[in-house]
Amino acid sequence: MERKRPVVVIVGAGFGGLAAVRALESEAVDIVLIDQRNHHLFQPLLYQVATAWLSPADIAAPIRSVFSQQENLVVILGKVIGVDTAARTVRIDNGAIEGNLQYDFLVLATGVRHDYFGNDQWETCAPGLKTVEDAIAIRERLLMAFEMAEMSTDSAERDANLTIVIVGGGATGVEMAGSIAELAKAALVKDFRRIDPRQARVLLVEAGPRVLPAFPEDLSAAAKHALEKLGVVVKINSRVTGCDASSVTVDDERIPAATVIWAAGVKASPAATWLNANADRAGRVMVDADFSVPDHPEIFVVGDTASLTDAVGRRLPGVAPAAKQAGRYVGQVIRAKLRGQAAPAPFCYRDLGNMATIGRRAGVADFGWISLQGPIAWWLWGIVHIYFLIDFRSRISVSINWLWSFLTYKRGARLITGAKRGVSKD
Amino acid sequence: MERKRPVVVIVGAGFGGLAAVRALESEAVDIVLIDQRNHHLFQPLLYQVATAWLSPADIAAPIRSVFSQQENLVVILGKVIGVDTAARTVRIDNGAIEGNLQYDFLVLATGVRHDYFGNDQWETCAPGLKTVEDAIAIRERLLMAFEMAEMSTDSAERDANLTIVIVGGGATGVEMAGSIAELAKAALVKDFRRIDPRQARVLLVEAGPRVLPAFPEDLSAAAKHALEKLGVVVKINSRVTGCDASSVTVDDERIPAATVIWAAGVKASPAATWLNANADRAGRVMVDADFSVPDHPEIFVVGDTASLTDAVGRRLPGVAPAAKQAGRYVGQVIRAKLRGQAAPAPFCYRDLGNMATIGRRAGVADFGWISLQGPIAWWLWGIVHIYFLIDFRSRISVSINWLWSFLTYKRGARLITGAKRGVSKD
Repeated sequence: MERKRPVVVIVGAGFGGLAAVRALESEAVDIVLIDQRNHHLFQPLLYQVATAWLSPADIAAPIRSVFSQQENLVVILGKVIGVDTAARTVRIDNGAIEGNLQYDFLVLATGVRHDYFGNDQWETCAPGLKTVEDAIAIRERLLMAFEMAEMSTDSAERDANLTIVIVGGGATGVEMAGSIAELAKAALVKDFRRIDPRQARVLLVEAGPRVLPAFPEDLSAAAKHALEKLGVVVKINSRVTGCDASSVTVDDERIPAATVIWAAGVKASPAATWLNANADRAGRVMVDADFSVPDHPEIFVVGDTASLTDAVGRRLPGVAPAAKQAGRYVGQVIRAKLRGQAAPAPFCYRDLGNMATIGRRAGVADFGWISLQGPIAWWLWGIVHIYFLIDFRSRISVSINWLWSFLTYKRGARLITGAKRGVSKD
Repeated sequence: MERKRPVVVIVGAGFGGLAAVRALESEAVDIVLIDQRNHHLFQPLLYQVATAWLSPADIAAPIRSVFSQQENLVVILGKVIGVDTAARTVRIDNGAIEGNLQYDFLVLATGVRHDYFGNDQWETCAPGLKTVEDAIAIRERLLMAFEMAEMSTDSAERDANLTIVIVGGGATGVEMAGSIAELAKAALVKDFRRIDPRQARVLLVEAGPRVLPAFPEDLSAAAKHALEKLGVVVKINSRVTGCDASSVTVDDERIPAATVIWAAGVKASPAATWLNANADRAGRVMVDADFSVPDHPEIFVVGDTASLTDAVGRRLPGVAPAAKQAGRYVGQVIRAKLRGQAAPAPFCYRDLGNMATIGRRAGVADFGWISLQGPIAWWLWGIVHIYFLIDFRSRISVSINWLWSFLTYKRGARLITGAKRGVSKD
């Protein structure tokens, strides 16, 4: 007679969720992995989709395909809309039907979305970058702005179309600003007749006193210098106070701009609400040292949507390596419980360092014991990111696109597609 | 004092329009190329985007980038909505503003859309394949059907989700059917737990007595055999008589099917209406021997939207080589007129043969003097299509995707993105 195996439900196929699934590969459990999308996304390179370097498929892999060999796993395409912690069920809406799924262990790795700090109406005028659709929409807006500038007969309208404002000076904002500046100064430069794309103004707005606040000060300065070399205007100690379809207001100055991109803040998924658990200001669930939720040793939260200070007092940052390490650790915790073994050693975050690139040649890298800047940081960044891409096909495809862009200064995915479909209305 | 140069307006950046632009490269004219999209699309491989082999950027190149070196050219992203043949102006709607553009010579290369033979309401239930957006929408529908089948608890619903009907047995229909059958039988086979993707039923419905009617009969038979070997059910002498969101009616039989794809017919762009010119049944402009419109020696129509019988009595087919040859010829005609030289020799279509593939190994090729079938036709097809891709980057990228699919049986662009965005409703 078949004995029913424990069910581990994992929500979210980002870095954290995938690592948890992998860590339970050889256990006698039934794993159910739920995600709203059919693909795992390599988010660190998503800004390159938004700026026409890469195609979505270069950095996204079908979840089913990633785990086609893992027989203790079922993948469900669906949206989690709640958790009943008493009945131990997860509520799923898969578009056609709603249903409940029973769990013995639950791992929530549901990530973050942009945060507009109470100004949610800004989302339409200043889109953020978290999904493939976000990236395609930003790419469309960016490329259309150059097209509209080329067609414009009014100089104020043309200038507004050639003004791109990026809000938020963290890694995403810095990388996006560098990539867009280079798009204008190099990739597009010969392709227009009435405008000179080099006239485009790229502004990076940061509320704090320096860009890349997670990096040492000398690297922040180096990044700022590299951005300015590409022509980016870096505005520190500046806040966005307003935004509409044709402009953004920075402090008291209204800047006409067709393209505004939001990279300023994130808020956690509603995991804390589902669980009725304590959360920090950004909505992250305050978890115990083993990522479990207080009073719920069977529920774990990992990745960007969890708030944890590790055994040696470090707060986990919202980056891919932290999510991966947490997912793997939770897999080990669950394994130990299933096997009746002692819990693994307390979680200790291994900081692999921080990297960011500025355009096609410059970069900064901080490993604590050493920090690098310039082309060497760019190359290191490139090699590391190729290495961490999920499959062989993506590695080849990204490498070739980079090599091609490096040699020709062009962008391989300069397509206007999606909602607006160029100027077509049909 | 600068003498005003003649203006050549070319509408449509498909194969015909591009060839005309190239043919006028070194003339003292001002060329204006207008297209609704920012990219030239290599349509013969579009079905591979729809079936998750390739990414859109693999087969699309930004028009501006293609011609960045051609200094007598201005590219305009806009939609043509009419022509005033008396005033010699083209009316353009570029989304923001409408305007008129003066021409001395006009070349219309505006192509075709699907034709539902008077049943335009079928477009929502049976989408056709002409643009990148069409391909992404079909890919989404196809992949979602397998997801819905996996989640379904009702066997009739599951069967409907696993039924894919392709309407039209020409090259597009045959290639699509083969590619989808192979997706189900090979690429997806290990990735589901509750369904066996091999159970998917792929039906190809053709109104005539055989598939690939443009090919010799023995190749039609070979294509049908190759399709059946992949499990495709080929229904000849069958007509679609109805279609709704969950089924298609073929003759008298109602077939529940989540995915129906229209590859049955095309109608020309409204060029004939704009010009108030004679058109054939499919709406193609009846042009004179040099592709000019009767009584308008300054207006030319080329490609799928023109109807012409050449000097030796052959009707031009609606294929890429015919459009290219026509575009190049019209460029020569305009050049001769500009230079006051004699008109070029009468146009004579050079038939380069017909090819189609069925899945990843089989194919048929007809060159008149020789016909091929099986793997050799597939390889030849592959080499020819790589050769004709517009730039080096596309050639590399398509080659690598094909090699990878060939070796692994997987598909590189298996993403559900777009309107439905997986099951997410946000």
